[in-house]
Amino acid sequence: MRLPTPATPAVSHRAANVRSSAIRDLLANARVPGMLSLAGGLPEPSTFPVELLAEAARRQVLEHRDVLQYAPTEGDPRLREHIAAYESVRQSRLVDPDHVLVTTGSQQALAMAAGVVADAGDTIAVPHPCYLGALQTFGAAGLVIHPVGTRDGQLDLDHLEAELVGGLSIPAMYVVANHGNPDGTRLNDATNRRLAVLAERFGFWLLEDDPYRELWFDDAPVAALGSHTANVLSLGSFSKTIAPGLRVGWIVAEGDARGALVRLKQAADLHTPALSQALIADLLDNRGWFVSHTDSLRALYASRRDAMADALHTTFGSRFHFTPPTGGMFAWGELEDVDTSALLAGALAQGVCFVPGAEFEAGGPSLGSWLRLSYATLSADQLHEGVRRVAAAVELLDADRESLVATS
Amino acid sequence: MRLPTPATPAVSHRAANVRSSAIRDLLANARVPGMLSLAGGLPEPSTFPVELLAEAARRQVLEHRDVLQYAPTEGDPRLREHIAAYESVRQSRLVDPDHVLVTTGSQQALAMAAGVVADAGDTIAVPHPCYLGALQTFGAAGLVIHPVGTRDGQLDLDHLEAELVGGLSIPAMYVVANHGNPDGTRLNDATNRRLAVLAERFGFWLLEDDPYRELWFDDAPVAALGSHTANVLSLGSFSKTIAPGLRVGWIVAEGDARGALVRLKQAADLHTPALSQALIADLLDNRGWFVSHTDSLRALYASRRDAMADALHTTFGSRFHFTPPTGGMFAWGELEDVDTSALLAGALAQGVCFVPGAEFEAGGPSLGSWLRLSYATLSADQLHEGVRRVAAAVELLDADRESLVATS
Repeated sequence: MRLPTPATPAVSHRAANVRSSAIRDLLANARVPGMLSLAGGLPEPSTFPVELLAEAARRQVLEHRDVLQYAPTEGDPRLREHIAAYESVRQSRLVDPDHVLVTTGSQQALAMAAGVVADAGDTIAVPHPCYLGALQTFGAAGLVIHPVGTRDGQLDLDHLEAELVGGLSIPAMYVVANHGNPDGTRLNDATNRRLAVLAERFGFWLLEDDPYRELWFDDAPVAALGSHTANVLSLGSFSKTIAPGLRVGWIVAEGDARGALVRLKQAADLHTPALSQALIADLLDNRGWFVSHTDSLRALYASRRDAMADALHTTFGSRFHFTPPTGGMFAWGELEDVDTSALLAGALAQGVCFVPGAEFEAGGPSLGSWLRLSYATLSADQLHEGVRRVAAAVELLDADRESLVATS
Repeated sequence: MRLPTPATPAVSHRAANVRSSAIRDLLANARVPGMLSLAGGLPEPSTFPVELLAEAARRQVLEHRDVLQYAPTEGDPRLREHIAAYESVRQSRLVDPDHVLVTTGSQQALAMAAGVVADAGDTIAVPHPCYLGALQTFGAAGLVIHPVGTRDGQLDLDHLEAELVGGLSIPAMYVVANHGNPDGTRLNDATNRRLAVLAERFGFWLLEDDPYRELWFDDAPVAALGSHTANVLSLGSFSKTIAPGLRVGWIVAEGDARGALVRLKQAADLHTPALSQALIADLLDNRGWFVSHTDSLRALYASRRDAMADALHTTFGSRFHFTPPTGGMFAWGELEDVDTSALLAGALAQGVCFVPGAEFEAGGPSLGSWLRLSYATLSADQLHEGVRRVAAAVELLDADRESLVATS
């Protein structure tokens, strides 16, 4: 007698087609001893307010048993008030705490915002290059990606408008307001106003992501999109200003979108961990602390931007095409005659990692010779050493190519 | 000159069709002063290990800055080892920590498991009645719900088999292993073995949810489905045994399903908050503590089950049809001649809430006269008072009906 072969089920088409995140995969590499990681946008751990958080955690658990119980889906009321106050300044209009929904980091904010504005098969416009966490979650939602390029450091809205007039139909467009990841683009007031006009004329949503807002080095940011239109879902995060491991982000939304977001959040994880929320709320009770804390973050990351720019200039000279960013965590540039995806393998062998430009492609021109280098996590000396290792890998790649040419 | 009317975009079809969770909505009611809530399965807060968690939180933040940094998507390695050890006992087979994925509560485990096994439009089999958080998240994923009834306290697999032979095609079936929510069904060994055979014969996944496993009052649970087949994704949670506010659950999965789950988790929220995970891992380092802690949970909830059964029997006599549960948090029964959805409005006015049976309907026969009463959160005296208030609302509803009959 033969036993029947058990039928093993497959995974869903949707899940099979979700791409992996290069940055997440590189995180594992970053834990190899001796590896210098220029890959992830990991904040400098010494900036975490450890003493304040440790005492807040002890007190919250001891005195407020509620932080261990099931909690409201919308989020901690005290935290929502703090976020509403912050967003009121950001958007130059009064934001109601009732319109704030706390999320498990801004990655969840992105996933849920995408779910609320678009159905599988819909097209979403995104900047090219684009933050790859956004590309991943939009892909997972079955959305078609439509690239919007840049011109003179701003989104090319002439081109987008022509496409919209020509029949391009989008329920939503994703933008990063300040120090866009990877390319550092910062939307100015004229761009914001024009985005608002286009969104209202063609009836689409703007998903405005702004995780790097506080990390400006020269000029403070302009008023956000909510100041110009109601067709916007505003996404924020404490990952770059307080601590990413707590996973606290948010969305501001009104009307039907707010109700739909709450239902999606119920279905996704009921609510964001209550202790994480209470810790952030405790810190924000002291507004003076947040202001001076973000002041020191700006000073720290500006000095690292300088160190990175110096290392790149010294090491590569004019071979690395790059404009030093005016904020955020990333240097983004092009290495002449280098396939940066091929370079990565050699760089790992040299003990350094970065993210190749191809990972950020959103359907626009190839970014195969571009790369993103984070200056957030390492000291100035380590940044110099990291860039030196990248250069060593480039040399080996050049030598390989020359020997191939010689033998062919 | 007339200004053009701004075009306001709609929310996506998918989001517009996601139902709200009655339990989440009732949580708001439960916060009304004086309200006795028999609605949610909220653990008794005095069981939360507050001193242990407060000290662990203080120490983790001070000594392990990593709990504040971006962390691996798969979860805290130490916690995954603890979960693998727990699952090895539960499944009577060695479970590899590498096959454990930590989730933001078991609601996220459900959402992600559904995403990995089924595409929008696919049919998923579920028990009727069914946990409404599962119905909500399966609905949000665009799945078609197919009910599986019960017979003699077990899933009616004769009927399901006939349907499968007759052409019913399902990529997955959802089951609750122990003390099913709402109806207390507990799958015995014969049912588990037969589920495994059906899953392998017809090539579908079993999504096995087991949040109430530790809350048994009479007999310890049987070996879980993973002991009989590889066609299973096992879901677990610390919400009922440690603290739900920390939002820590898990999935055990191998092969392609594991990889797909990790990618979906990256897209969903990058990772579960690291501090929540470290706190649970700290508690589980002391295995003796977990055993004695769950012993006392069993004793507490068994005594409340008794109080609830007593209150229902004393108050309603034979009008309330119900079998006292052998574990878990809920009494589930039928109130003769009562529309429990209509009853709820009157009950809220009396200062008590519960969940009407209709909320758990999964496409099988009407549950309009059934209701779910949680005995987890309130003391014995409060349970008696809560049931008295439900009875008062029933009396008013009866009187209304009689006066309608009299005047018609």
